[in-house]
Amino acid sequence: MSATEVAPHICLLHGPDQPGLVAKVSNWIFERGGNILHADQHRDVEQGIFFQRVEWIPASESADEQTAFKRFATELGMNPEVSAPGARPKVAIFVSKADHCFHDIVLRWKAGEFACDIVAVVSNHRVMEEAARNYGLPFHHIPVSAATKVEAETAQLKLLAELDVDLVIMARYMQVLSDRFLDGFGKPVINIHHSFLPAFAGGRPYHQAHTRGVKLIGATAHYATAVLDDGPIIQQDVARVTHRHEVNDLIRKGRDLEKLVLAQAVRWHLEHRVLVYGNKTVVFD
Amino acid sequence: MSATEVAPHICLLHGPDQPGLVAKVSNWIFERGGNILHADQHRDVEQGIFFQRVEWIPASESADEQTAFKRFATELGMNPEVSAPGARPKVAIFVSKADHCFHDIVLRWKAGEFACDIVAVVSNHRVMEEAARNYGLPFHHIPVSAATKVEAETAQLKLLAELDVDLVIMARYMQVLSDRFLDGFGKPVINIHHSFLPAFAGGRPYHQAHTRGVKLIGATAHYATAVLDDGPIIQQDVARVTHRHEVNDLIRKGRDLEKLVLAQAVRWHLEHRVLVYGNKTVVFD
Amino acid sequence: MSATEVAPHICLLHGPDQPGLVAKVSNWIFERGGNILHADQHRDVEQGIFFQRVEWIPASESADEQTAFKRFATELGMNPEVSAPGARPKVAIFVSKADHCFHDIVLRWKAGEFACDIVAVVSNHRVMEEAARNYGLPFHHIPVSAATKVEAETAQLKLLAELDVDLVIMARYMQVLSDRFLDGFGKPVINIHHSFLPAFAGGRPYHQAHTRGVKLIGATAHYATAVLDDGPIIQQDVARVTHRHEVNDLIRKGRDLEKLVLAQAVRWHLEHRVLVYGNKTVVFD
Amino acid sequence: MSATEVAPHICLLHGPDQPGLVAKVSNWIFERGGNILHADQHRDVEQGIFFQRVEWIPASESADEQTAFKRFATELGMNPEVSAPGARPKVAIFVSKADHCFHDIVLRWKAGEFACDIVAVVSNHRVMEEAARNYGLPFHHIPVSAATKVEAETAQLKLLAELDVDLVIMARYMQVLSDRFLDGFGKPVINIHHSFLPAFAGGRPYHQAHTRGVKLIGATAHYATAVLDDGPIIQQDVARVTHRHEVNDLIRKGRDLEKLVLAQAVRWHLEHRVLVYGNKTVVFD
Repeated sequence: MSATEVAPHICLLHGPDQPGLVAKVSNWIFERGGNILHADQHRDVEQGIFFQRVEWIPASESADEQTAFKRFATELGMNPEVSAPGARPKVAIFVSKADHCFHDIVLRWKAGEFACDIVAVVSNHRVMEEAARNYGLPFHHIPVSAATKVEAETAQLKLLAELDVDLVIMARYMQVLSDRFLDGFGKPVINIHHSFLPAFAGGRPYHQAHTRGVKLIGATAHYATAVLDDGPIIQQDVARVTHRHEVNDLIRKGRDLEKLVLAQAVRWHLEHRVLVYGNKTVVFD
Repeated sequence: MSATEVAPHICLLHGPDQPGLVAKVSNWIFERGGNILHADQHRDVEQGIFFQRVEWIPASESADEQTAFKRFATELGMNPEVSAPGARPKVAIFVSKADHCFHDIVLRWKAGEFACDIVAVVSNHRVMEEAARNYGLPFHHIPVSAATKVEAETAQLKLLAELDVDLVIMARYMQVLSDRFLDGFGKPVINIHHSFLPAFAGGRPYHQAHTRGVKLIGATAHYATAVLDDGPIIQQDVARVTHRHEVNDLIRKGRDLEKLVLAQAVRWHLEHRVLVYGNKTVVFD
Repeated sequence: MSATEVAPHICLLHGPDQPGLVAKVSNWIFERGGNILHADQHRDVEQGIFFQRVEWIPASESADEQTAFKRFATELGMNPEVSAPGARPKVAIFVSKADHCFHDIVLRWKAGEFACDIVAVVSNHRVMEEAARNYGLPFHHIPVSAATKVEAETAQLKLLAELDVDLVIMARYMQVLSDRFLDGFGKPVINIHHSFLPAFAGGRPYHQAHTRGVKLIGATAHYATAVLDDGPIIQQDVARVTHRHEVNDLIRKGRDLEKLVLAQAVRWHLEHRVLVYGNKTVVFD
Repeated sequence: MSATEVAPHICLLHGPDQPGLVAKVSNWIFERGGNILHADQHRDVEQGIFFQRVEWIPASESADEQTAFKRFATELGMNPEVSAPGARPKVAIFVSKADHCFHDIVLRWKAGEFACDIVAVVSNHRVMEEAARNYGLPFHHIPVSAATKVEAETAQLKLLAELDVDLVIMARYMQVLSDRFLDGFGKPVINIHHSFLPAFAGGRPYHQAHTRGVKLIGATAHYATAVLDDGPIIQQDVARVTHRHEVNDLIRKGRDLEKLVLAQAVRWHLEHRVLVYGNKTVVFD
């Protein structure tokens, strides 16, 4: 987890399990003079899938390494994602009116916790325009109504394409993204849902939790998919509540959960620690 | 929470909120020379309900105190439950094959953590017969099948009535109790469900959790009601899991959660700390 | 915990335990037509001390209520602190270079979590000057060196007196406040120490924790006293770490702990939930 | 973490870091036809040490595999501990009067959570004799007083040698083991200390915690060394307490912590997941 002087190559790969995969991958790197910093693997025994995250410094900095590794891993039958050393993904933050996750993400980014470039703040409201500009971030107001949803999403997609965005963070963006949008974007979207999924999916989860009388409230960061609040879960956490807490107290306590859970999920994603398969994730922490 | 030499009276009361309730109750006790050890109250502002738990030592030990307080509280429009000082509720433990909650409850009881008498262990299997007898506890084998469920519940109810049981603890008893049973018993039944309700109600919750790919598993202790896994929640807790945990690991980790959550709920119940209203609880911890 | 339309009176009192205190206090309020919203009490049985926090709405808004209650409680032998309804304490934040607690406190304040006025940001460095000004907060640079410590503290005290400050929050202010300062200020100072006290008091606690190989790191919010890191503890929390975490990871993870623990302590303090006695606190949560 | 049909070889190794270690180890196994189930490694960058835990199934079950791997790893400059597949370490449990950790360890063992044989219960008191015998475990009463400490330890060492014990678990054994004993035994001893070390080392830690007014209590499982409560920490956990908890409540709540923390440490140790270096541990969880 420490910083290293030279940025390492990081590869996430997965595919049908077979004997010798660990040896073959480590060998490939070693024989070319590379040095493995971290290697973590997992087998889903039921489904016979092998997962690996490997981080290494090659003998010499050549653009070729990435391509060569990709070819090698593919020949092994694996599905590799290799990140260029030191690459900084471009990130867009989608927000509505609640600002706690927005400030939290931006302040962590300014503190150096996230290796990315925040290239746009997109909102269906103007509430956070000033805050975004104070942080020096370009703000894009794209209003959304039932009538204009298709147009709005088209505008959003156009913007994301122009800016070559690699990741969208829904920092309490209170609109459901359509399949059309998710397919059109074709890259990961991380959402924070303010409940311990699968409990209390959908709207007003703190109200639902209060009505049910639960003793813990939760927050869930997940990749957005076509099915609302049903995407692969990256991180979850909970906080204790009692009968003394009214809905407003749950909302207040929930803000802290949402900030921590979303930030952790974003961090893991940016550090190439998350592999999605089916509706689940492998997180190489 | 400390032990006091003389056993205190404890009253749980609730009813329509009105000004002066705290003053009136404390005055009643004070004017008769009693000393309040603890008093805790709560208002449900939305529903206009007042809840109180008060623990006091009367000036002299008379059986009258309990009756008198009950009358007084009822005149205030409150619904009081007054426990006789030093009373030890009679408890029956229902078990099936899993024994971890059973051992945990009995060992805590032997260590003095629960002020009750365990008067029966009831099971639909014979697996725990020897363990119960080693602890010196009477074991009752009442087999249950789809065909014999009504008869079995009748036999259970007869036993509970004969033993004058005040509380049933379902320590991983894997049968659903019918409305008929719950109404016939008419006293509290505490169940431990091996998930973070309302997520994963019903059967095989750890399998459900594994399939969904959650990052925390939970356990929930609640009063049993006619609707499966939907009764008022007393206590919940969670434990962190990762992609490395298979279903068997969830089951193993879950055992610890189930023990702790059930024991805490039973302890609170026996200390007269839990008030049920609607589908929720107030826990005066 | 809910918001009420009219701001209530809140009193924290403590003194020698005696029978009838709960009744007397609630009676006094009730007989004047007041309505108790919350009342919480505690007895330290060993030391024979009674503690109470009571929150009530008087029949009519008169300035007299506060004075009258104070007189009444004093006659009971109690030591009362009565807060005027709706009073907003004046707060000064002391900072050095680390800015995470500073942003966290200010953003919560802006979100309405803290009922206070932040009247000054005081620092021995200029690092946070711009951030403070962007938030619209007056920034005071008072450099401190070994040679100028006495002068610097004198300047700080003068500023605090001029601004009539009620509370100082040390948001990772990296200077030890002298007895002279603490006595001269004469009002509460809340500090956040980045370890689970009493483990790792003093400097570089994350380095100490890393060297010792602990599996949890902590943070502690406490009232500052003459003895370094030894004041009454208000709140503590911990986070899990492993052998994979280097000192920089502990520092990063610790920032989240520090923010949450300090914010919780400040919130409890401002809501008049914390009573200090000896080197301990009673927190009426 | 899943059970596999064939018991795997497990090796823990550590030594000076050098490029290619991961490749060399995995290659050695692969070339002999073995299949790696899990491989986890860690580098202490400051100290330049490489740590690895590798679990594999060899092509054929030969006693030779273990010896051959040991030789190979030693030639690499590593310090290997290879466990024979399916080996069940022999364990002695040391107890005094408190029985909660004892019951917990034995019940988990009976439930199949620990792959070991419990070959002796050793105590300086007779309190747990009957409980041990009920579990079918041989009980050895070896009284200890200041005057007889040396003799007693000699008797203990003799017993451990006769029974060929691999691990001693101090399940709230309230005697300090001397250097002489620890050296004489020469194998791991796991102790549970009832505080969050390094806070509150030594006697009566719950009393110390109560006096200091901490808001969390803890428990620490560590390998016993010559310096009291200072050995390498394997696992720690905490629980929240408030001003309402008296020392007896801390003791009661602490029992749950002690059970969970000790059981986790024992489980990790028995699964060959713990590597000690200096005063710290690497836990491959």
